[in-house]
Amino acid sequence: MRIVAFGEIMMRLTPPEYLMLEQTKELRLDFTGTGVNILSNLAHFGCQTSLLTNLPDNRLGEAAKASVRQLGIQDHWIGTAGDHIGSYFAEMGFGPRPTQVTYQNRRNSSFGISNAASYDFDAILAETDLIHICGISLSLTEETRSAAFALAEKAHDFGKKVCFDFNFRPSLNEEHGVSFMKEQYEKILPYCDLVFGSQRDLTDLLGMKLDETLESSKQFEELVHRFMTNYQLEYFAGTLRQGDGDKQYLTGFLVDSDHYVQAAPREIINLDRIGAGDGYAAGVLLGYSEAWPLIETVEFATANGVLAHTIQGDVPLTTRKQVRHIMEQPTVDLIR
Amino acid sequence: MRIVAFGEIMMRLTPPEYLMLEQTKELRLDFTGTGVNILSNLAHFGCQTSLLTNLPDNRLGEAAKASVRQLGIQDHWIGTAGDHIGSYFAEMGFGPRPTQVTYQNRRNSSFGISNAASYDFDAILAETDLIHICGISLSLTEETRSAAFALAEKAHDFGKKVCFDFNFRPSLNEEHGVSFMKEQYEKILPYCDLVFGSQRDLTDLLGMKLDETLESSKQFEELVHRFMTNYQLEYFAGTLRQGDGDKQYLTGFLVDSDHYVQAAPREIINLDRIGAGDGYAAGVLLGYSEAWPLIETVEFATANGVLAHTIQGDVPLTTRKQVRHIMEQPTVDLIR
Amino acid sequence: MRIVAFGEIMMRLTPPEYLMLEQTKELRLDFTGTGVNILSNLAHFGCQTSLLTNLPDNRLGEAAKASVRQLGIQDHWIGTAGDHIGSYFAEMGFGPRPTQVTYQNRRNSSFGISNAASYDFDAILAETDLIHICGISLSLTEETRSAAFALAEKAHDFGKKVCFDFNFRPSLNEEHGVSFMKEQYEKILPYCDLVFGSQRDLTDLLGMKLDETLESSKQFEELVHRFMTNYQLEYFAGTLRQGDGDKQYLTGFLVDSDHYVQAAPREIINLDRIGAGDGYAAGVLLGYSEAWPLIETVEFATANGVLAHTIQGDVPLTTRKQVRHIMEQPTVDLIR
Amino acid sequence: MRIVAFGEIMMRLTPPEYLMLEQTKELRLDFTGTGVNILSNLAHFGCQTSLLTNLPDNRLGEAAKASVRQLGIQDHWIGTAGDHIGSYFAEMGFGPRPTQVTYQNRRNSSFGISNAASYDFDAILAETDLIHICGISLSLTEETRSAAFALAEKAHDFGKKVCFDFNFRPSLNEEHGVSFMKEQYEKILPYCDLVFGSQRDLTDLLGMKLDETLESSKQFEELVHRFMTNYQLEYFAGTLRQGDGDKQYLTGFLVDSDHYVQAAPREIINLDRIGAGDGYAAGVLLGYSEAWPLIETVEFATANGVLAHTIQGDVPLTTRKQVRHIMEQPTVDLIR
Amino acid sequence: MRIVAFGEIMMRLTPPEYLMLEQTKELRLDFTGTGVNILSNLAHFGCQTSLLTNLPDNRLGEAAKASVRQLGIQDHWIGTAGDHIGSYFAEMGFGPRPTQVTYQNRRNSSFGISNAASYDFDAILAETDLIHICGISLSLTEETRSAAFALAEKAHDFGKKVCFDFNFRPSLNEEHGVSFMKEQYEKILPYCDLVFGSQRDLTDLLGMKLDETLESSKQFEELVHRFMTNYQLEYFAGTLRQGDGDKQYLTGFLVDSDHYVQAAPREIINLDRIGAGDGYAAGVLLGYSEAWPLIETVEFATANGVLAHTIQGDVPLTTRKQVRHIMEQPTVDLIR
Amino acid sequence: MRIVAFGEIMMRLTPPEYLMLEQTKELRLDFTGTGVNILSNLAHFGCQTSLLTNLPDNRLGEAAKASVRQLGIQDHWIGTAGDHIGSYFAEMGFGPRPTQVTYQNRRNSSFGISNAASYDFDAILAETDLIHICGISLSLTEETRSAAFALAEKAHDFGKKVCFDFNFRPSLNEEHGVSFMKEQYEKILPYCDLVFGSQRDLTDLLGMKLDETLESSKQFEELVHRFMTNYQLEYFAGTLRQGDGDKQYLTGFLVDSDHYVQAAPREIINLDRIGAGDGYAAGVLLGYSEAWPLIETVEFATANGVLAHTIQGDVPLTTRKQVRHIMEQPTVDLIR
Repeated sequence: MRIVAFGEIMMRLTPPEYLMLEQTKELRLDFTGTGVNILSNLAHFGCQTSLLTNLPDNRLGEAAKASVRQLGIQDHWIGTAGDHIGSYFAEMGFGPRPTQVTYQNRRNSSFGISNAASYDFDAILAETDLIHICGISLSLTEETRSAAFALAEKAHDFGKKVCFDFNFRPSLNEEHGVSFMKEQYEKILPYCDLVFGSQRDLTDLLGMKLDETLESSKQFEELVHRFMTNYQLEYFAGTLRQGDGDKQYLTGFLVDSDHYVQAAPREIINLDRIGAGDGYAAGVLLGYSEAWPLIETVEFATANGVLAHTIQGDVPLTTRKQVRHIMEQPTVDLIR
Repeated sequence: MRIVAFGEIMMRLTPPEYLMLEQTKELRLDFTGTGVNILSNLAHFGCQTSLLTNLPDNRLGEAAKASVRQLGIQDHWIGTAGDHIGSYFAEMGFGPRPTQVTYQNRRNSSFGISNAASYDFDAILAETDLIHICGISLSLTEETRSAAFALAEKAHDFGKKVCFDFNFRPSLNEEHGVSFMKEQYEKILPYCDLVFGSQRDLTDLLGMKLDETLESSKQFEELVHRFMTNYQLEYFAGTLRQGDGDKQYLTGFLVDSDHYVQAAPREIINLDRIGAGDGYAAGVLLGYSEAWPLIETVEFATANGVLAHTIQGDVPLTTRKQVRHIMEQPTVDLIR
Repeated sequence: MRIVAFGEIMMRLTPPEYLMLEQTKELRLDFTGTGVNILSNLAHFGCQTSLLTNLPDNRLGEAAKASVRQLGIQDHWIGTAGDHIGSYFAEMGFGPRPTQVTYQNRRNSSFGISNAASYDFDAILAETDLIHICGISLSLTEETRSAAFALAEKAHDFGKKVCFDFNFRPSLNEEHGVSFMKEQYEKILPYCDLVFGSQRDLTDLLGMKLDETLESSKQFEELVHRFMTNYQLEYFAGTLRQGDGDKQYLTGFLVDSDHYVQAAPREIINLDRIGAGDGYAAGVLLGYSEAWPLIETVEFATANGVLAHTIQGDVPLTTRKQVRHIMEQPTVDLIR
Repeated sequence: MRIVAFGEIMMRLTPPEYLMLEQTKELRLDFTGTGVNILSNLAHFGCQTSLLTNLPDNRLGEAAKASVRQLGIQDHWIGTAGDHIGSYFAEMGFGPRPTQVTYQNRRNSSFGISNAASYDFDAILAETDLIHICGISLSLTEETRSAAFALAEKAHDFGKKVCFDFNFRPSLNEEHGVSFMKEQYEKILPYCDLVFGSQRDLTDLLGMKLDETLESSKQFEELVHRFMTNYQLEYFAGTLRQGDGDKQYLTGFLVDSDHYVQAAPREIINLDRIGAGDGYAAGVLLGYSEAWPLIETVEFATANGVLAHTIQGDVPLTTRKQVRHIMEQPTVDLIR
Repeated sequence: MRIVAFGEIMMRLTPPEYLMLEQTKELRLDFTGTGVNILSNLAHFGCQTSLLTNLPDNRLGEAAKASVRQLGIQDHWIGTAGDHIGSYFAEMGFGPRPTQVTYQNRRNSSFGISNAASYDFDAILAETDLIHICGISLSLTEETRSAAFALAEKAHDFGKKVCFDFNFRPSLNEEHGVSFMKEQYEKILPYCDLVFGSQRDLTDLLGMKLDETLESSKQFEELVHRFMTNYQLEYFAGTLRQGDGDKQYLTGFLVDSDHYVQAAPREIINLDRIGAGDGYAAGVLLGYSEAWPLIETVEFATANGVLAHTIQGDVPLTTRKQVRHIMEQPTVDLIR
Repeated sequence: MRIVAFGEIMMRLTPPEYLMLEQTKELRLDFTGTGVNILSNLAHFGCQTSLLTNLPDNRLGEAAKASVRQLGIQDHWIGTAGDHIGSYFAEMGFGPRPTQVTYQNRRNSSFGISNAASYDFDAILAETDLIHICGISLSLTEETRSAAFALAEKAHDFGKKVCFDFNFRPSLNEEHGVSFMKEQYEKILPYCDLVFGSQRDLTDLLGMKLDETLESSKQFEELVHRFMTNYQLEYFAGTLRQGDGDKQYLTGFLVDSDHYVQAAPREIINLDRIGAGDGYAAGVLLGYSEAWPLIETVEFATANGVLAHTIQGDVPLTTRKQVRHIMEQPTVDLIR
């Protein structure tokens, strides 16, 4: 299955050794973004992947492209526009100190100023089986919104699978109210086949209601199925985090028209607190692309999400072998 | 409240990534010291702070001053004398391996050879509301002792607040016995308003006795009040460490003439095992300077002390926002 | 003389060891900008300096402020606005390979979106003797233009010295033609006392003509004096670069109403190819503020400009002692 | 007691900060190997140690020798042969992600191509009281096998103590079956006095059987004593790992002809997951060389093994003072 | 023109900052090799390139592939075999101190043990217009020799262009004498169209004689034309180094059936003393693939060779823009 | 010839990449000193060397000892005393910017506080053929002076060769005048056999006069011979620096009772501006210990001095092979 993602490439600048910004003059540079993360992970699983985005036509854009190729992603659908890449600084947390992300200008980035006319969707889709669209596109700019809509509609019309990730962050949408954002999400969902999201996306953003006449353990499942029927979705998936004392656990759920499956929780041990969601999504897409049983997919994807937290940076670089290792030999902590 | 600290600037040289000295040729250079630590933290809280010390008149002294300014501390009361800065090497511990501090010559440092005549106390105090004096001055050299006494007396006479920190380390006083040191501490205490210390400082150093006729939970409180009455102190404060299985907890206590308050214990997770005491002191001084209720001060200061352990280096660089975050949203470990 | 500069703080991100962007994941972070560079150098010469600009109210803004303080510049006139700092990547050249600078978005920076209303010019000028305004402000945005004009006019009215730096780069002004830019420059010049520029600024930008009836060695001098008379300037100054075989030389010129002086050329040996102009300007401002003879000023400033090329980064961190050393003992290449 | 080890020096190349190979262009270079590890630790305990091996006669070989000397080991018995040092890459694990070791060519290394004729065993043994031989020699090449046999036999004949470490890794012996390897081990054991190994070495490799008529807690002890009697061994020793929930514990056992002693388990907190076995062995050899009571030896060696996991790299660099510290003051995590 | 190179991927390990091996514990890791170098450069010029080689099927092999992709080279013809990558350490020289390269085992590398049967030449050649074969293949092992012969012959038969690079190093061929190597070179040359080499390759290795009856300036040209006629070559090309006082210059020559052209010499300023030859070859191949006039090709290729020396590492990462810049604006040493 | 040096081990802390102290938080740590430098170089030439000094009995002292061993020097005569190692910061110069050395406290170092009673000279000299004493000992403290005198006298009495290095720096002797220092030098010289120094040492320090009746080219030679006769010296040696335009050259001279020889000047290209003198001295001692002809010695030593400037740090790590390479193949700047 040839998988393409439409989304922004960002620079991540990270101080070494858990230092805070004012403590260092050295930063680690990575190129990241939901699309980059998911595709790179799928490429490490052996899938053919390609990123659809725009970058500046300068040395920084070239360096970003080189990095994307290194991650295993094809770069021939990466065009040029503008002269800016959105960036963020990640001060890595430790113990009770949270990881602190500080964003720099994203709206004026090469991606942010590119609209549907900036891309050759027909040609791209002709080489694609599944297209992943990140919900950030709906928040970023008028240009990215219009591009996302046009791409989703065209892909749907061409009979390609459309995977959409809610990725709704109120902080990115202070300009527009929730009702504006609701409209945007409702506009894209009819074209989608697989959706990643959370209960809160359905209730707080879309305004759906839990059926409180059901026993509480069934309410979320019913809500998801109602949502999926609405938009004729194949898959709805996402992750849950649970605390127990000092410990944190990750579980993934995966829903198709008939079933709701959930993985056994796995303890989260963080090297980097960013990236589990994209790792989980990559796992689900791998299972989907190879038609695994739901339970196999959800267990693999959850293990992968947990592994993503043990890798520095947002990009989950796990291989199938690594995921299988922690599923099958969790106590073997040294391989030689 | 304009806060000035009188104390030594030291070089801290730290191998990267928990390496030991013989494993590395690279060291991280920081400038530190009790005064630097407390003032920098107060500056990060928005207070106006200035350091009173001497440095060599050479490139190393200039670099130290630049670092102090970067931390937010004013440098116009930093003078020059001698040609040496005391230094220490911190081999950072991991798990059961303790952090190992190795000191280099401190007594011949620019600070160590400067006495009362080396500073213009009158001018400095005219711009100061509270002066912090570190007890290390009483241990270091005859010169630093005389300077500390003169400064404390003069500040007291001028009606300025004097904050004193016991900071008694037997290892620094092998030359003089405890009885000599007791005299020094007794000489400075009459000029003080706020004091940081521990039960051991009162019993082992000053030779006070717990009233064992009281129930044990009240003995420390009574001892502190007796001590405070003796010297007409406003505040006595300090921290306690408690172990529970593998875990370690930090609690701060704060005492005024009428009350003894103690914070809820917070788990310590160490990135750096040095610095919690100064973080706690900065929190207490902030509450004091803004006349917070004792309980608010002690909770804030304890949270700050715990955060200090999550920051590399001795200097607690926390902001009010960061401290409030872990008090109010302790489970949010990623902010973006 | 209390010197204030009005200008942008930028991030400079530099790969280590002459690597190109695609060769490294590590970058060195510095905060820079014409104002930062000149003030920091003046502070290292012992002057009192303060920067007037805006930064984002976030952790990156705080880190920038800390860096500015470390450089010796006061930060109390640095306000907050927006959420972006303009940045550039400097791939350091070696031999025939040029240093390559790649800019990221500057127009949407905190500085770029701040206009006259964003600053309290009256209060600032009350504490200032000389204000430095960088010509980049005229190129950047409508907001920075209006702020620069208002500041220059007000400073002039208050009887403060205004120093202006042409800093005209066609590449920053592609949007507006030269005639638009000419108008802007002509609008600010009447308020100025000291100006840094080049022959090309006067001829190509302002459209002045060399008097070709004079012997060629006098034409530039006459042009400058005509320009200075026009705008009643005290000083006009700048640098010239001359090649001789493989070698490059720097000379500074300095003109007052009566004299034209030029320094003996000094060979340029580059550690960093950015920063000589600001080093030269700092030298001239030092001489001006202390009323040195022109020839002393121009020699010192040229030596300082050459030293700036031996220091990594844009910021010339030289002291008077260092400049004097290469003027007086140029063959002593090891001091101990 | 003059202790010599016969074994391979390897290069270990480790990415910094838990990065994986594809994430970094920087590697840390260490020289390691069972012999290096044990001898360096013994040297840190104050013993006189010397390594017997071969290295390439080039700059890499010289650097390896310099590193060995730095670790405290004498290098005058290190000869030259070939032009290659075996190497491995250690991608350090974090949480559930295991440490991943990737070996490069070992069989063609300078050590791998050297046989008995490459060394002057007589001269070496004349200066030696105890010789340590690592079982890897039996797996590596025909040359290393023949050298190990010749050395063990000669040492035994000269009345020197021979210490042998099973170090059996099936992955290194895919070429030869277990029965071939069994023969090799049986060939060397008659010359040995001290042996490090595990129950699995005795049962799976040597094919011995547990006496299941005994109660299970006695079966291993009886097996070991049977094995020791067979080969007339003085000591048999090794480590056990036990999990308890998330935690892992290390215990060492030590057996002489009459006793079986086992240390209290100590929790393992890993900075580096490689090296505890060699740390344990060094502790046992120290106790042996100074004739400590078994229980003292096993407690010290176990504490040392646990400390080895807190030190980056394979080489345990602990001193007696450090080991004693965690035995006597385990809660003091900061020494100054 | 689709260009494929057949050759070895090597690890280059370089100490930072001109340190020697014994002075550092940190190394920079690059993947390199003649094929990698030329293809990466061509990819930076916009050509489609693919590497034909084998790597270990382990994490190091994966990291090497990721690096090759990052350089712009396609990796789908990179197969797996063995478990070793040849490596070398480059201690970078400074001034009179030469760069010192120390090789580790190359013959047992994945590439070294792969023969013609390890690759699917038919499929590869079907997608290829020009194949580059490095002469190192003839020196390395019996397997690489047989693979090189088979590939050259098949490419020739399929009507593909074959480019061959002498790359003869006596030090790699100590085992076999010159006459053996002569036979190997003579065996491959009949299949070749473009050849890179030197006068010494023709005289010392192939045993050809200069026609000393000609005037000396014509002897080399006549020799080359004789050689080219012999083997019906389209192009013969190479570089010459000339010293003049302290300075070194590089010139390229390029010969077709009718002409001998030579570029104007360019001064060499070394950041890295390795890589000019591959940079020159990439320039020639670019000109060839786009049918440039010879003189244009040779000037471009020489400029590129000189630029290669200003880039750290063996891999010339120049773009057309960079090469054109130093040809057209050599005095502009700062671009912004 | 077994060579021992008596002298101080210092810490050298160097910012990376030509940064100045205020520009970096990272420092490179080396252990150095005249004795360390000369012995390490001699060890690299294959001589047996041992250092006689004292270090603190703490982790820093241990790390220093490990470093000394790594350099090839035996450490069994390194004792313990005090708790301080003298240190200096080296800000590496570039082009016209000089290297700036800033010393920290040396007089209170372990070496500085050790006198003759701190060492077992008899035992040491029994194992020594030549002892090197650095003139710094005469400047440092009363203790080091007395130790140097006692050692020189005893060595002389035991018939051992005594090599003395003037190393007179007025800046280290501000406390005592020149006449005091003259006495000290005159006290030690009668015990010496080989002396390193300069014309200025003889004229300005010892107060000897050039015989101006001789032609000027002979005056220095005559002066040296007069000095040598006075003290019955075998060798007097030193280096001269000469400038020619931008270039600097190094020449060594070497004098025995009958001859004055001087090497051909070699251009100095500096990676590090410290260390040539010790490199030259090591070369002379090698020639002396192997009884080379004077001219061979002086040429080798001068080449070695020039190489020392191409190596980072004070310690010349050259091998005979490296020195011979630049003597015999100066144009081969890449060895592989």
